[in-house]
Amino acid sequence: MTEWGSGWQDALRERLGDRVSVASGDRNAHAHDEGTPYTCIPAAVVFAQSEADVLATLAVAREYGVPVTPWGAGTSLEGAALPMPGAVSLDLSGLDAVGEVDPVGLTVTVGTGVRRTALNRRLRPHGLFFPVDPGADASFGGMAATNASGTTTVRYGGMRENVAALRVALLDGRVLTLGSAARKSSSGYALKHLFLGSEGTLGVITSLTLRLHPLPPVTASVQLAFPEVAAAVLASVTVRGLGVLPERLEFVDAATIRAVNRHRDRHDPEAPTLWVEVAGRDGADVTAQLALLREAAELHGGQVVGEARAPEAQSALWAARHAVYDALRAAWPGHGTRIGDVCVPLPALADTAALALRLLDGHGLTAPLVGHIGDGNLHLLMHAPPDDAEAWARIDHVLHDLAAHAVAVGGTCTGEHGVGLRKRAYLRAEHGDALDVMRDVKALFDPLDLLNPGKVVGDPDTLPPWRNDVPARP
Amino acid sequence: MTEWGSGWQDALRERLGDRVSVASGDRNAHAHDEGTPYTCIPAAVVFAQSEADVLATLAVAREYGVPVTPWGAGTSLEGAALPMPGAVSLDLSGLDAVGEVDPVGLTVTVGTGVRRTALNRRLRPHGLFFPVDPGADASFGGMAATNASGTTTVRYGGMRENVAALRVALLDGRVLTLGSAARKSSSGYALKHLFLGSEGTLGVITSLTLRLHPLPPVTASVQLAFPEVAAAVLASVTVRGLGVLPERLEFVDAATIRAVNRHRDRHDPEAPTLWVEVAGRDGADVTAQLALLREAAELHGGQVVGEARAPEAQSALWAARHAVYDALRAAWPGHGTRIGDVCVPLPALADTAALALRLLDGHGLTAPLVGHIGDGNLHLLMHAPPDDAEAWARIDHVLHDLAAHAVAVGGTCTGEHGVGLRKRAYLRAEHGDALDVMRDVKALFDPLDLLNPGKVVGDPDTLPPWRNDVPARP
Repeated sequence: MTEWGSGWQDALRERLGDRVSVASGDRNAHAHDEGTPYTCIPAAVVFAQSEADVLATLAVAREYGVPVTPWGAGTSLEGAALPMPGAVSLDLSGLDAVGEVDPVGLTVTVGTGVRRTALNRRLRPHGLFFPVDPGADASFGGMAATNASGTTTVRYGGMRENVAALRVALLDGRVLTLGSAARKSSSGYALKHLFLGSEGTLGVITSLTLRLHPLPPVTASVQLAFPEVAAAVLASVTVRGLGVLPERLEFVDAATIRAVNRHRDRHDPEAPTLWVEVAGRDGADVTAQLALLREAAELHGGQVVGEARAPEAQSALWAARHAVYDALRAAWPGHGTRIGDVCVPLPALADTAALALRLLDGHGLTAPLVGHIGDGNLHLLMHAPPDDAEAWARIDHVLHDLAAHAVAVGGTCTGEHGVGLRKRAYLRAEHGDALDVMRDVKALFDPLDLLNPGKVVGDPDTLPPWRNDVPARP
Repeated sequence: MTEWGSGWQDALRERLGDRVSVASGDRNAHAHDEGTPYTCIPAAVVFAQSEADVLATLAVAREYGVPVTPWGAGTSLEGAALPMPGAVSLDLSGLDAVGEVDPVGLTVTVGTGVRRTALNRRLRPHGLFFPVDPGADASFGGMAATNASGTTTVRYGGMRENVAALRVALLDGRVLTLGSAARKSSSGYALKHLFLGSEGTLGVITSLTLRLHPLPPVTASVQLAFPEVAAAVLASVTVRGLGVLPERLEFVDAATIRAVNRHRDRHDPEAPTLWVEVAGRDGADVTAQLALLREAAELHGGQVVGEARAPEAQSALWAARHAVYDALRAAWPGHGTRIGDVCVPLPALADTAALALRLLDGHGLTAPLVGHIGDGNLHLLMHAPPDDAEAWARIDHVLHDLAAHAVAVGGTCTGEHGVGLRKRAYLRAEHGDALDVMRDVKALFDPLDLLNPGKVVGDPDTLPPWRNDVPARP
């Protein structure tokens, strides 16, 4: 346990009082994320309640050379929120203010610690929602810092398209307001975008103005089975050409459907499958869209597995999709999981999916392959016994080959999970000389390398010394 | 006229041969843009035919300390493409290659000099189009460099949302490829976005990969008159809540309708007016949207002036909107024009429009007020006799007060025209300390201040010495 008295701790305590903790319970609660096998215990935790607390923490960091790693909800999958040795974990969950909803401009300003589902509950009575849905109940600061996206990105875009403005505290004590509630601007450099996806390595986001969208008056869903992945991709392109832009367009591979059938006693066709949600003005609107979806599916050899319009019926239809994780856990009780994600240009998607399945097969592994197919975004849900180091090494091989392939075909090593610690190794291949420019940008904002050091543009050969090949949590 | 022999000219000629010109015709053709009253004759013009030519020009710039200002189509309205004294105008219109259209990924890669209308002609047989439409037949490099947007931005976004990737040549000779054909990424800092809107001050964009969209199967248009601007704004918000997101949503003030009526012998209600285009899958789809549009308009006191479904009928309906410029020119023959644009949060739009009309009145001026109302983006089409310095001074006052107001209400001094020379004065008020950070970023990419110096983040008090208060072109 860290002892008080070495200077920076006293300085933190002096400025932040009991909002600083070195209790092992608090430190351990900030030592793991939801996706990486590392245990990274921070030297202290600051429970910030305000932007002033963030600035006070950064002042101590600057004066004493103490690294700081922001913490939102801890739902990161790539290690973005894990503290370096000796670092302070800056817990931002206390910055939880939600401003007035602007029903004309369709914006709301929230503290960086506000979580997605809490905001959407509050927006529902206004007939509005915030569309970006990464699955986890992440904080908006974390979602912004990793440029998160998810199921609805095919229609609404990700965080870069839906953050109108943000405030960010810099290491030198300045607070910048970037962007505005105006819906567009050609005024100056896009610094706002620079912080979206920077994972706390350039500054600490303290609040965000979010773009809201009207809840669709009516929705409907359909489940479609295809003879092969390529047919599913082409059907999704065809339907766009017919004037239908779905709300969600989710893919699962055939073997996973088999596993879900077993787990749920279902009899769905064991084929590459799409779940599609469409939204419309009224019943006739979604009826017409469903007809075009069927037409597009049939054109590419697909068949309708199920269709649903009432909310409960839609939930039942999507239940098979949402059962993927449960089926995995039921089939492999006690296994640890690791989710790898890549994103490729749509013409490369079918081959990338095929490669993923071949890699699994070649390494004697099974894993659900799920994807946001309209974006070209694929996930492998890897699993193994926590202590089976050899299995985890094979998993590493598969995820490595998949990420390298995605970059080689002109895609990206991380579609929506961020870089954190584990995707740093692919940035040179993906960005070339631009990686050096990113490092120059990092040095501009953080010359002392105190803001979430090592992450994103850090040296990928320097794995954290506390690396633990045995996953710490199932 | 510039003489050969002072070093850099010889170096340019040696590396670029007859693609360098100091002929006065060529230099004069690069001395004006479409919106500013300056005459800025470059020291030479390089007619680049390739990325290699761009790099050769930048190498000479670096070695001899010669400033370089990129030139696309010269359609800038704020002086972004005007060369500094002694600068080389780098004409990129020769980088006009158009790559294969990707019908699955919905992308195409184009040279920076390709123009908007030429590309859309080529895309039409594919059933695709590139939606960003700033009005002028601009080059894609210029549109990217000013983060241009326009009539369709309410639905499709502007350049930041529609440039998938770009190549940019840096002053130090590196060429970065930023972004990819993958539809999303969380990999590293958003350098691509930094160049979108940087107006050639950080590097020279040489090619772009653009996101394409399916041409809507069916469209229809409606013209609506409202008792006041606020009602038009609220109707546009209401209709979105009903599930209708128009393709275009164009506003014109009452006095301008009066002028168009006179010019075209029309009898449209002389009231704040919206033209709305909706797109759908089929006739029934647009019929339903038109019904909701009428409903939303009537809810806010609006009335339908006209409605059109056949392409020719739609063109006739929009003719009144497109006649604004003609009516202006007919009413004030020989006048020079200057278009100022601002963008404000939607709740501030009606007051901003009212202020614009009051400012005109207070200064004894008339000017059409037109806007992309779904974005909160307003334009004043100012006009005066070219040699009436006193009138131009009043025009400056109006545009100044409007830009200052837009910033004061949380908007931006330039919604889509860029900063260039004339909007620099508002960047401190709009961005605060972020302007200093922008200048740091400028210094990082251009330590010698050779890339379009003076623009965007340049000192606004230093007006170009060649300023001519008498507009050089009508």
